[in-house]
Amino acid sequence: MKKTEEYRSKCPLSIALELIGDKWSLVIVRDLCMGKSKYGDFQNSSEGIPTNILASRLRELEENGIVIKEPYQDRPTRYAYFLTEKGADLFPVLQQLVIWTQKYVPDCLTLPENFFSITPQDLLLKR
Amino acid sequence: MKKTEEYRSKCPLSIALELIGDKWSLVIVRDLCMGKSKYGDFQNSSEGIPTNILASRLRELEENGIVIKEPYQDRPTRYAYFLTEKGADLFPVLQQLVIWTQKYVPDCLTLPENFFSITPQDLLLKR
Repeated sequence: MKKTEEYRSKCPLSIALELIGDKWSLVIVRDLCMGKSKYGDFQNSSEGIPTNILASRLRELEENGIVIKEPYQDRPTRYAYFLTEKGADLFPVLQQLVIWTQKYVPDCLTLPENFFSITPQDLLLKR
Repeated sequence: MKKTEEYRSKCPLSIALELIGDKWSLVIVRDLCMGKSKYGDFQNSSEGIPTNILASRLRELEENGIVIKEPYQDRPTRYAYFLTEKGADLFPVLQQLVIWTQKYVPDCLTLPENFFSITPQDLLLKR
């Protein structure tokens, strides 16, 4: 994990974007929130994440304490990925992004109302 | 502005990231929220945005209806940038990102409590 002086500024908004400000990290966090945990699950999502980007984002998310991985198979070792508390606490960010898109982008999927009542704690209990 | 079928999926989270999922767009939105409006103001922020990225992000933000530009000088024409209602409605996303960083990244700036009571409407009235 970076030290604070290694970020481009000490602004909390800017630091958040250095950590998860890209087109894919929060898509993976979304999948984890939905209970997906394996490499192939993430690849099967409709956005079609390229495999090299998936590998690199999972590694960064792990380095930044947002996900943890656990082996679920030997020879070859394969890992399942789970949200940490820090990762689950990104859920309110996802909720606000969804509210924004639903307000301004016609024809996007409308998520069921209960999406907005899920809490980070719910996501950790689900595991 | 893109048509919905041009996005990689119809998921509202994924669409939001296609629009503002990068390390700089929301830094510019932050500056606009703070009342900055001119090219040089954005360049002076402590993150040191490269000028080519600033130009390209401002153009994309404008294309996506998040900012509008208005000429404030002739020969050469110079523009000032302002948040639209759609842009101001990103403020709750910024607030949640700040809450998250303040919880998990030691030594980042702590924003004053009133940052969290600002509403998108306040930002539009300020102009």
